Amino acid sequence: MRQYELRTQTGPAGLHMVATEPPVAQSGQVVVRIRAASLNYRDLMIAHGWHGRRVATPRIPLSDGAGEVIAVGPGVARWRVGDRVVANFYQSWISGELRAEKLDAALGGPIDGVLSEQVAFAENALVRVPDFMTFEDAATLPCAALTAWNALVEQGRLRAGDTVVVQGTGGVSMFALQIANLFGARVIATTRSASKALKLRQIGADLVIETATTPDWERAVLSATGGEGADHIVDVGGASTFERSLKAVRVGGRISLIGWLAGSDAQVNPFPVALKGIAVQGVDVGSVEMFESFMRAVTRNRLQPVIDRVFLFGEAPAAYEYLASGKHFGKIVIAV
Amino acid sequence: MRQYELRTQTGPAGLHMVATEPPVAQSGQVVVRIRAASLNYRDLMIAHGWHGRRVATPRIPLSDGAGEVIAVGPGVARWRVGDRVVANFYQSWISGELRAEKLDAALGGPIDGVLSEQVAFAENALVRVPDFMTFEDAATLPCAALTAWNALVEQGRLRAGDTVVVQGTGGVSMFALQIANLFGARVIATTRSASKALKLRQIGADLVIETATTPDWERAVLSATGGEGADHIVDVGGASTFERSLKAVRVGGRISLIGWLAGSDAQVNPFPVALKGIAVQGVDVGSVEMFESFMRAVTRNRLQPVIDRVFLFGEAPAAYEYLASGKHFGKIVIAV
Amino acid sequence: MRQYELRTQTGPAGLHMVATEPPVAQSGQVVVRIRAASLNYRDLMIAHGWHGRRVATPRIPLSDGAGEVIAVGPGVARWRVGDRVVANFYQSWISGELRAEKLDAALGGPIDGVLSEQVAFAENALVRVPDFMTFEDAATLPCAALTAWNALVEQGRLRAGDTVVVQGTGGVSMFALQIANLFGARVIATTRSASKALKLRQIGADLVIETATTPDWERAVLSATGGEGADHIVDVGGASTFERSLKAVRVGGRISLIGWLAGSDAQVNPFPVALKGIAVQGVDVGSVEMFESFMRAVTRNRLQPVIDRVFLFGEAPAAYEYLASGKHFGKIVIAV
Amino acid sequence: MRQYELRTQTGPAGLHMVATEPPVAQSGQVVVRIRAASLNYRDLMIAHGWHGRRVATPRIPLSDGAGEVIAVGPGVARWRVGDRVVANFYQSWISGELRAEKLDAALGGPIDGVLSEQVAFAENALVRVPDFMTFEDAATLPCAALTAWNALVEQGRLRAGDTVVVQGTGGVSMFALQIANLFGARVIATTRSASKALKLRQIGADLVIETATTPDWERAVLSATGGEGADHIVDVGGASTFERSLKAVRVGGRISLIGWLAGSDAQVNPFPVALKGIAVQGVDVGSVEMFESFMRAVTRNRLQPVIDRVFLFGEAPAAYEYLASGKHFGKIVIAV
Repeated sequence: MRQYELRTQTGPAGLHMVATEPPVAQSGQVVVRIRAASLNYRDLMIAHGWHGRRVATPRIPLSDGAGEVIAVGPGVARWRVGDRVVANFYQSWISGELRAEKLDAALGGPIDGVLSEQVAFAENALVRVPDFMTFEDAATLPCAALTAWNALVEQGRLRAGDTVVVQGTGGVSMFALQIANLFGARVIATTRSASKALKLRQIGADLVIETATTPDWERAVLSATGGEGADHIVDVGGASTFERSLKAVRVGGRISLIGWLAGSDAQVNPFPVALKGIAVQGVDVGSVEMFESFMRAVTRNRLQPVIDRVFLFGEAPAAYEYLASGKHFGKIVIAV
Repeated sequence: MRQYELRTQTGPAGLHMVATEPPVAQSGQVVVRIRAASLNYRDLMIAHGWHGRRVATPRIPLSDGAGEVIAVGPGVARWRVGDRVVANFYQSWISGELRAEKLDAALGGPIDGVLSEQVAFAENALVRVPDFMTFEDAATLPCAALTAWNALVEQGRLRAGDTVVVQGTGGVSMFALQIANLFGARVIATTRSASKALKLRQIGADLVIETATTPDWERAVLSATGGEGADHIVDVGGASTFERSLKAVRVGGRISLIGWLAGSDAQVNPFPVALKGIAVQGVDVGSVEMFESFMRAVTRNRLQPVIDRVFLFGEAPAAYEYLASGKHFGKIVIAV
Repeated sequence: MRQYELRTQTGPAGLHMVATEPPVAQSGQVVVRIRAASLNYRDLMIAHGWHGRRVATPRIPLSDGAGEVIAVGPGVARWRVGDRVVANFYQSWISGELRAEKLDAALGGPIDGVLSEQVAFAENALVRVPDFMTFEDAATLPCAALTAWNALVEQGRLRAGDTVVVQGTGGVSMFALQIANLFGARVIATTRSASKALKLRQIGADLVIETATTPDWERAVLSATGGEGADHIVDVGGASTFERSLKAVRVGGRISLIGWLAGSDAQVNPFPVALKGIAVQGVDVGSVEMFESFMRAVTRNRLQPVIDRVFLFGEAPAAYEYLASGKHFGKIVIAV
Repeated sequence: MRQYELRTQTGPAGLHMVATEPPVAQSGQVVVRIRAASLNYRDLMIAHGWHGRRVATPRIPLSDGAGEVIAVGPGVARWRVGDRVVANFYQSWISGELRAEKLDAALGGPIDGVLSEQVAFAENALVRVPDFMTFEDAATLPCAALTAWNALVEQGRLRAGDTVVVQGTGGVSMFALQIANLFGARVIATTRSASKALKLRQIGADLVIETATTPDWERAVLSATGGEGADHIVDVGGASTFERSLKAVRVGGRISLIGWLAGSDAQVNPFPVALKGIAVQGVDVGSVEMFESFMRAVTRNRLQPVIDRVFLFGEAPAAYEYLASGKHFGKIVIAV
């Protein structure tokens, strides 16, 4: 079978397709024939070694993959050959509260990932793909969608009528928009691009703020909320957006800080957090149990992920380049 | 001005329209020109004195009323003449947790209600009616809709993908159905009537169980949930339905017990509550702050209450009779 | 090695000590040399087959055991030989919310228990015993203490100043008393016996109600709380106490229903649940993660379980008889 | 009667004692004969106009005061003459969630405070002082103790066995230490002074880190928690301590940011918040309902505030100077 290895953290050029022996299902494991994978900005950071994202090389990249079970190891009770599954980002975070040891086994980083024709997973670190859903769609979910779900639902206890701000058109923001829509919340989206603004409205943003013409988007949020501010801001921009988010959120509101996209060196003044009684919640993807809960929401509502483009398995480096270009709207998928 | 008084707890015949002096806005009060009121089953119970619902007579009946502010007393900062408002069921539950003293001042029971052309309210016990909403629609919300919101959202932390069971076609159940829909939850509704089943589907039930042909509806719920049971059951039937609800709810699930409709003498065995780790939550309408949160959801989603029929002010006793007939589907309103 | 088997559900007479081959640590398992076990009323119910507690026989009885690791199977990362551990009641409830499949593997019931010199456990279903704690003390915790912790802390969010009612002097009630003390809560305890009343005061009850002289203990609770009622009642008596608990709890308060002790045929009227906005929460032991949280509390506060008596391994049937006598105050332990 | 006015924001020199007409109890108000008041660092900031704390002058200073009711206005049902009461910091935050409009009426800032022989309060903005408690003790609670309670209990859901870090020996930190002790939590305290370290141990700190010799206190916290970090840090130092707090808190842990002490211009990098899944919660004193809950804890546990020194009414400016000196350990009180 074939798989990609990141041999050096030199960007997409460090990716090499290799032929290798297929994995064997050990006790408690299943082997999955991967059918689709998707990219996150984190994968680009790891490929380049940006911001200290060092990994042991060679490393099989990517965290997000879906496929079907082709072998089950001894003692496996949960899955049968033929089951359609998607892997959880953190293979060691099955359920319960966030604890350090649950973050050890992140696919495509500290441990090998899914850009491979076959991968062995622990049986309890997988989630069932509903019948109606394609592998391409399922492969978009593990990192970006679960992060948005954890931020808004698990941590944020989103409710109908809340006002949610999402920033830009990356994967987390797109899923946050869709999840907020599912719950009957109001969505204010920001984007630099007029063409993307149109698409954001089409997929359900109640209001779009174009930051090219309105760089002080926090004022537009205040204006759109009667001066009060938003209930919930999903902040994916790190320090560059956090200061504006502090102004745009209401007294007693919530800002979810999403780590993977954050630049690592900017500085902000945390003073308004205290004065306004804001909850700033770091969100680090989520557990298998959260993923299952999200999947019930997806299934009931036939949620359709926004996919920009599907690359072939042999085009993986080009998929990385496309992600780096920033031209995409929604997720970039690799069919395996 | 004119108002109704319940002079004896002898049913609708105990209601009398009288002419009286209009109220004056005391310090911290506003006087509201009531434009519409709505009936709840509780009002029928009070009119008849059923199940120990004794009130001091004469008593102005009904808890649910909406109208416009026509006078403001000294020190009132929140409202101006002309503001459109709806009164909270519990005039003394403004916000925070349920405590006994917050239940003292329930409209149309321990204190006078809203079936009057003019009523004086404390300024902090009112909620603003959004511009798009009629007084008739607003008047349907205080008891039934807030109860459903409190059960599913405040207490139940409803999320998309949950399975919710609602029973019958009374006010609480109809609003529970609509709120569950707002949040992307799946709704299973029960009804005795085939004609009502059709309407339930039209307003958004994913599955309707007709109890005339399927009296053991709990089996149908289990069957529709892969044997697991529902996440949340809004139980409005008291002891008559509670035993079935205990079977129909999943391990770790939730049953909201709604008090006003409950018969007072039936008995059930609470054993399954312990074995299945069920949360049984008594729900007693809600606070002004919950009502405001619900109203944000209503406004964002243009939620349209299901109104069966609007009676004229002079027809109030007939409205009670119609409620007693059980023929209604949704709320019964009295235009004032 | 030696172990007990329950061969017939005929009470303690059904227990037989047998010699057998020691277990081998499979993949992901460790073998524990059991040093102490403790009894719960559930074990008596299973031994007799009361209230439908049927199990496949022969069955190794008891859920609560502690000992030291003597062998680790392939792939085990969490434990080493010599580690001191206690087993979780539900071997399949590691963390997260209660779901039916997590209740499958309860020790000493659907699966074999711990009344054996050696037992193999899944590595993630054990909790570390702190250095200061004896095996006898650790063996008292899995069922009774974790149930009390789950009821009061995980579900009940106990806080200093709350008033907690505990009933009688069984294991769950004793631990509930001690946990409430740890949190600075006020404890009202009930007991039939004057001699036990004294002991209850000694271990920290703020108020003891002797039900021999005050059978309507709910009135004494109301009186001791200014007429308001208790914040939290840990109800271990099933239908026989539940009706009084409904009267003794405050509006908006909480009753934890503990299943194993409950009689299965009595009936109660759930009406007050709705009227008073009570939360009735079924509690079914708890997860490994809850157990670890409890163990941190035990460690910080050197919590000392109340042990009535320690039996020798060969005296197991006598330990059952002693439990049945109801003369004990606190836990009954078997040294293995 | 006499009261102090802050005439210019020029420090303690701006304080002037004046004779004035006593207040009259308006509708819904009571007049309280203040018996004691206490100082917070916020009062010093307001007296100097530091960090933009501008107030309209003349302004009666101080937020924290206790005394007895000497007159009740029309419509007051909750209080009688002779009742002993303490005022809530936010006169407009009675209960429920934090919303901007509830922060309008903060005593001694946007509205007049309590450094006066008589003050009129809204009847629902007061809390009863338990019989066992002196006015001096009660006067220490409104700002500092309620902030600590809100941080650790209301927001933080503190439980026995948690590890809590408190910084220095100011009012919030002292109360946080005592509240953590009440709940059976482990407390790590930091201080610059060796003499204060001793006192911190005496009032219950499990571990004291002297920052004069161990400036990198976050390492000592990690070391004392097996490398994991603390569950909860009550951060009162603003940007100067926040970066260390981010290192000292565990993955999934919580930092409460207390606003009044924070410097306003330092900058920090929020990146670790996202990576470690930290909850950073701004805490802004609290509501009357929280205060009542805290008072139940105080009453059950006879919590004794740490008072450094009591000044006479005429010595108020000296009390401010003493606070500015930083020599105090615990609260500074003014007897009125």
